[in-house]
Amino acid sequence: MNSIIGYYSTKFGELWEKSLDDLLVEVFEGVLSENKLEKEHIDAVFLGNMLGGIVDSSLLLEAHIAELLGINIPVYRVEAACASGGMAVQMAHEYLLAHKGSTVIAVGGEKMTDVSAEHITQALASAASPLEQAVGLTFPGVYALLAQIYLKKYNYTEEHLAAISVKNHSHGVLNEKAHFRRYVTVDDVLDSPYIAYPLKVLDSSPISDGAAAVILTNKPALIKSSEAVTIKASEVATDTISLAKRGKLDELLATEIAGKKAFKTSGLKQKDIHIMEVHDCFSIGEILALEDLGFWKKGQGGSQAQEMVTHVDSGSHLIVNTSGGLKAAGHPVGGTGIKQIGEIYLQLTGKAGKRQIKITPTCGLAHNVGGSGGVAVVTILST
Amino acid sequence: MNSIIGYYSTKFGELWEKSLDDLLVEVFEGVLSENKLEKEHIDAVFLGNMLGGIVDSSLLLEAHIAELLGINIPVYRVEAACASGGMAVQMAHEYLLAHKGSTVIAVGGEKMTDVSAEHITQALASAASPLEQAVGLTFPGVYALLAQIYLKKYNYTEEHLAAISVKNHSHGVLNEKAHFRRYVTVDDVLDSPYIAYPLKVLDSSPISDGAAAVILTNKPALIKSSEAVTIKASEVATDTISLAKRGKLDELLATEIAGKKAFKTSGLKQKDIHIMEVHDCFSIGEILALEDLGFWKKGQGGSQAQEMVTHVDSGSHLIVNTSGGLKAAGHPVGGTGIKQIGEIYLQLTGKAGKRQIKITPTCGLAHNVGGSGGVAVVTILST
Repeated sequence: MNSIIGYYSTKFGELWEKSLDDLLVEVFEGVLSENKLEKEHIDAVFLGNMLGGIVDSSLLLEAHIAELLGINIPVYRVEAACASGGMAVQMAHEYLLAHKGSTVIAVGGEKMTDVSAEHITQALASAASPLEQAVGLTFPGVYALLAQIYLKKYNYTEEHLAAISVKNHSHGVLNEKAHFRRYVTVDDVLDSPYIAYPLKVLDSSPISDGAAAVILTNKPALIKSSEAVTIKASEVATDTISLAKRGKLDELLATEIAGKKAFKTSGLKQKDIHIMEVHDCFSIGEILALEDLGFWKKGQGGSQAQEMVTHVDSGSHLIVNTSGGLKAAGHPVGGTGIKQIGEIYLQLTGKAGKRQIKITPTCGLAHNVGGSGGVAVVTILST
Repeated sequence: MNSIIGYYSTKFGELWEKSLDDLLVEVFEGVLSENKLEKEHIDAVFLGNMLGGIVDSSLLLEAHIAELLGINIPVYRVEAACASGGMAVQMAHEYLLAHKGSTVIAVGGEKMTDVSAEHITQALASAASPLEQAVGLTFPGVYALLAQIYLKKYNYTEEHLAAISVKNHSHGVLNEKAHFRRYVTVDDVLDSPYIAYPLKVLDSSPISDGAAAVILTNKPALIKSSEAVTIKASEVATDTISLAKRGKLDELLATEIAGKKAFKTSGLKQKDIHIMEVHDCFSIGEILALEDLGFWKKGQGGSQAQEMVTHVDSGSHLIVNTSGGLKAAGHPVGGTGIKQIGEIYLQLTGKAGKRQIKITPTCGLAHNVGGSGGVAVVTILST
């Protein structure tokens, strides 16, 4: 059985004094020392990073890691846009399925704030379809199209979207590693400037620096039940890169497929999940995720969001994005998928501090999306 | 047992009329139709690509592939600089170790000729260390340093290096998919302009477009002995990104480690290998590879190269780079590692046409390097 036995993340935010290499070293050393492990215990490393070589001139990050850590073991860099971190964990899980008695690290990180807003926006847009890029669409625009369709089809307003940001910001206040640690109100969100109608600044996750790492193992001696969680499923699905080629625009098909596979593999049902981290790059993203993963019926997400039924203080049996989500915890793209899984790890092991959910959770789910749903990774963990 | 049951590549060269997406579709359709398989038979895709998002604006190539092929299965993009293709096969092999009864495609490709020489040189240099980049080193310069050390330490001349290019060009003539299909002489090489002393234009692999794909399976029904080769080992190792941090500069340690692991895993010895494709990005690369993989003693490579003991017409028991190597077949970086393994597949199945080696080979080895040896992948195949 593959387990996660440790998690460490840097603070997410504008970390101008640190390079990507600095962040990667910090999380490696952090996650190893927290578990009293040495680098010699690690058999392979899986690295999620989106923008290496684009916002800096760092390709072949495998060898950066080898040099920084003084290792010669296999290191794999995977790029799946904003799902790079989730994919790194997914690959690490696959690797362990093939290698009994092994221990690996999945790490993700990104350094995004060292370049201009224009440069980073364009770099991120590289994960949109060539046609979308050609007509000038960037990711706020892509998700704004999804939001417009959703609001119109199901008769919701911008206020319904705003509730997602309000909830996630109030979670972020409880997370000392979050990029934003302040409350926002529905009015704050509605009063913030549009970036692409109907999405506003406060519907949007920020440009962040940060890195995170988890240790995965199937070595029985390392799996101490109190500090380990089991990977029940880790599944990935893909979809067209172009919105124009999709059958429906009020859902992300890749999320739906990966979610169904993950529930099938794990043998669990939606009602078994107590804690989730989903991909709220924009507020509409969280609503689509809850619907596409089968927790809410299609079209119900707007009203569910407005009632904040997944807030940590709601007493509900399903709490979502206690880390603050991408919105408040920040979104260093390669690091996000690892942080999501790390947050579930913290909740399942009772280490989530001020944001620990009220009931004792036994199962959690992490959902990481690349681009506008071209890739989705769904990971289910249990105590 | 994991097997390779099919291979297809585009022509390598300056393919201005084709996009990367065009090349990927061509090899997918080519490798499937050659094997009378449909996309529905494929469980996952592993894509090696180095420069997506850098020389074009195409990240999240996973979703390009999903859209182009009309699939929703897992697709993984790995970037390990010039070893991206070898890594894709290595990951595909690991995946199959975990999933019995599965069939996957490993594909690699690159579109390099659509940008200026300055742009592509700088993009490739992103796989060098930050310090090396800062002082203005590009890859010809990095390998020129290795060549200078080697020639000086073991008392060889530029003529010894030239023999590698002469041999590989004469192999390229026999390969209808090669970028260069013309003979060069030692004098041609020596008379060609220096790009970084002691390396000249004709010591160097070209900037190429191209893609290649292999089908891997462990489904017994698909493994027909006459057209399948067995993967005996596929191993990867890493080393420092900086030359300055290495103990020795007359070897690539990652090659040595990956090679030793591959021989150990396969249970084979150097004498069992009849056919090899090694990473001759520059002529010195092939000499180092043969030494570091344990075929020639350290320091013997220069004289062995000059005698062309690995030429297809030599009648020797070990023939190297019948595809023409990176030098003559071309080097579309993400595609190279797949083409190397594909060439071994063709030789072991007797399908190498005019360049089929004289003896009937039973084992072959492919060796793919990222950067100046920050990553090395060694794959051993047998009939």
